[in-house]
Amino acid sequence: MGEKVTPRILQGFMELLPKEQILFNEFYDKIRGVYEKYGFLPLDTPTIELSEVLLAKAGGETEKQIYRFAKGDNDLSLRFDLTVPLARYVAMHENELSFPFKRYQMSKVFRGERPQKGRFREFYQCDIDVIGVETLPLIYDAEIPAVICDVLTSLNIGKFTVRLNNRKILGGFFASIGLSDKITDVLRIIDKLEKIGADGVTKELISIGADSATIEKILGFVSICGDTDSVIASLKALGIDEETFVTGVNELETVVGYMRAFGVNEANFKIDLTIARGLDYYTGTVYETMLDEHKNLGSVCSGGRYDNLTGYYTDKKMPGIGISIGLTRLFSQLIDTKIVEAKKGSIADVLVIPMDNSVLGYSLSVASAFRNDGIKTDVYLLEKGMKQKMKYADKLSFPYAVIIGDTEAKENLVSLKNMKEGGTQSTLSLAEAIKEIKDNK
Amino acid sequence: MGEKVTPRILQGFMELLPKEQILFNEFYDKIRGVYEKYGFLPLDTPTIELSEVLLAKAGGETEKQIYRFAKGDNDLSLRFDLTVPLARYVAMHENELSFPFKRYQMSKVFRGERPQKGRFREFYQCDIDVIGVETLPLIYDAEIPAVICDVLTSLNIGKFTVRLNNRKILGGFFASIGLSDKITDVLRIIDKLEKIGADGVTKELISIGADSATIEKILGFVSICGDTDSVIASLKALGIDEETFVTGVNELETVVGYMRAFGVNEANFKIDLTIARGLDYYTGTVYETMLDEHKNLGSVCSGGRYDNLTGYYTDKKMPGIGISIGLTRLFSQLIDTKIVEAKKGSIADVLVIPMDNSVLGYSLSVASAFRNDGIKTDVYLLEKGMKQKMKYADKLSFPYAVIIGDTEAKENLVSLKNMKEGGTQSTLSLAEAIKEIKDNK
Repeated sequence: MGEKVTPRILQGFMELLPKEQILFNEFYDKIRGVYEKYGFLPLDTPTIELSEVLLAKAGGETEKQIYRFAKGDNDLSLRFDLTVPLARYVAMHENELSFPFKRYQMSKVFRGERPQKGRFREFYQCDIDVIGVETLPLIYDAEIPAVICDVLTSLNIGKFTVRLNNRKILGGFFASIGLSDKITDVLRIIDKLEKIGADGVTKELISIGADSATIEKILGFVSICGDTDSVIASLKALGIDEETFVTGVNELETVVGYMRAFGVNEANFKIDLTIARGLDYYTGTVYETMLDEHKNLGSVCSGGRYDNLTGYYTDKKMPGIGISIGLTRLFSQLIDTKIVEAKKGSIADVLVIPMDNSVLGYSLSVASAFRNDGIKTDVYLLEKGMKQKMKYADKLSFPYAVIIGDTEAKENLVSLKNMKEGGTQSTLSLAEAIKEIKDNK
Repeated sequence: MGEKVTPRILQGFMELLPKEQILFNEFYDKIRGVYEKYGFLPLDTPTIELSEVLLAKAGGETEKQIYRFAKGDNDLSLRFDLTVPLARYVAMHENELSFPFKRYQMSKVFRGERPQKGRFREFYQCDIDVIGVETLPLIYDAEIPAVICDVLTSLNIGKFTVRLNNRKILGGFFASIGLSDKITDVLRIIDKLEKIGADGVTKELISIGADSATIEKILGFVSICGDTDSVIASLKALGIDEETFVTGVNELETVVGYMRAFGVNEANFKIDLTIARGLDYYTGTVYETMLDEHKNLGSVCSGGRYDNLTGYYTDKKMPGIGISIGLTRLFSQLIDTKIVEAKKGSIADVLVIPMDNSVLGYSLSVASAFRNDGIKTDVYLLEKGMKQKMKYADKLSFPYAVIIGDTEAKENLVSLKNMKEGGTQSTLSLAEAIKEIKDNK
């Protein structure tokens, strides 16, 4: 063939070698497993949607990042999150769904951002949401963190804390100090507290016209800390009777109570009054989740309560609550910082190695017996020397190799080699081999 | 909010209600399970690639179907199959992979075809391939149908037959009758035998200049049938000594022998000399798979052997063999023709129903105990009447409902209701309930 094309992928797109992909899939499967354990229903919306539908709400920064293009007469876009497709789906199928509608979706989304470390243009989001019609009780605000805790425990990536807050507390507080017309600005500034510190926040608050008494109140408010119950007590002790504020504090107290009923470990959550979340549609409970020993990773799982998911598509009011795990980003960070390490090079538990072609039939029947017993089994079928065959088993780090020679074939046995360093090799019956492999899985 | 956008999706895109999605995912998981059982490694290439890389080989019809667009300075395309990305991946990572490289990928691909029934613009392909360096022994041509048979058996959609052929037999035969320069045309025409019949094929063969003696030979050749061994005997009996033909017959005979060694059931495969496969890169064994009782669905799983996967990217010769299941299309056909029916409306095995909020804590602890024992459990948390709660359980067809009232909470018991028609309800200890649910899963 003629001129070669250099094989390469685009910047900002994650593609893994098999070893990392196996680990990635383990993460994916664990998250999915927990979502399903709580009864969330699967959904798989199209990757491509009509721009008119997908961008009903978008604008500004988001819209610039969209992969948007024409095909035939259609103006199309790739989904940039899983929330807008959910809104569209629920509005479309309202009469066919049962509410509360609990769904999960774990799919790729696309954002043409300027590529930078840890940012991807194509990445998996793993979302759960609970959608109600007209109302949705507060207890669902407690089920969501229960799921988060279960997910993060199953991922086994160290201690974590779900930080929670309620937008009404923030909104109400700022109304009480006469800053209602600047709530969005103030929230945006507070959101940066961890990034730019109290001085930075003060500077920005001055720039939007806050006087020093107000700034003092704001900084005092956001510095309320301590255990869950004392934060709630401190909030009540502020003596603010602004209605939204009072509602927010009550909601937060109720949610915390329910979280305890859900058995969420006290060590795994705390109130953090600085959390506002960037998106403007959150209206109540909001969450961020930090890995305690790796706070530099930022929030690995965020979300909250919104009053009206489907406003762009229907008049019916559909409140909901949900969270999202950015799995591609999380995984890439965990690998980069060596918090996790990809160790399994093979998907199979065993590599069956026929010493030569004369024992092929028996080797294949052994492999088949393993598979029927639920053991993932590969067979090495190249005609190479034993040294190269063992090298393949080593390189792909199969937990076990099963070596079949004349003797094994004649006597209906297998030589089972534990491939761990210093692992032993023993000649066993098929049943014994199956037992050993299963016992050590 | 103002003007509403009509919530809708594009024609030619599959989107399922939860009940169908649950069944779709069962299919997906079963296929993946079998692929992994044989040790195929997972891969997940980007959805978006550089057009220059992805379309190195494309042209004509394929290129017209591509979703291609510019973003910044990049000319981008959505993948239209999983084979080209595999070729690019193998060429890119040759030194990091171990060969034979066995990989599976089950991802969406995109083709902007004119929408028609059963055709999708976005659909899942479920591919396996085995790639060698320079050579790959014929025995892998037998492993592939072994996997297909295992997949289709696990899907439980009725009897099926893997039809196999070898392109060298076809090519060699046509060379032997002096039609080498028209092989592509002739193969294309023969490929339509089932669709347009012998008359149609004759007409088309005349139109490309075949005389009647040649046409007779062709039709005689493609009508060779019977069991596997007699077809091979008939091929040998033709007395053709054209080298490619002889090689092809020998390869086919060898592959059939290996398939028997793999334990492939004789009832699940046969030789079909009319199979050529459309794609021009197949060079040896080719497969198509039909559901015996639903031949109108066409081939549900096709593929074959190719000599040079990576020719557009590297000088290194990389032969391979693989197959693809078009899951979206298959699933849609199975549903449309009622061969399968989506019955499970819930992902969870149990719905826990607290009679009122006073038993919420106990209900949540019951749910938690179920989950810890591997039972997928949803809890109904809306404050509605019992009738509406049971209606929800019915509508989503949970296998079991667990009803918790004051008595149950006080005595640490649960009321377990089997939701099947005529199902009984009994008051049990938690351990008894867990046992019953697990026994009936």
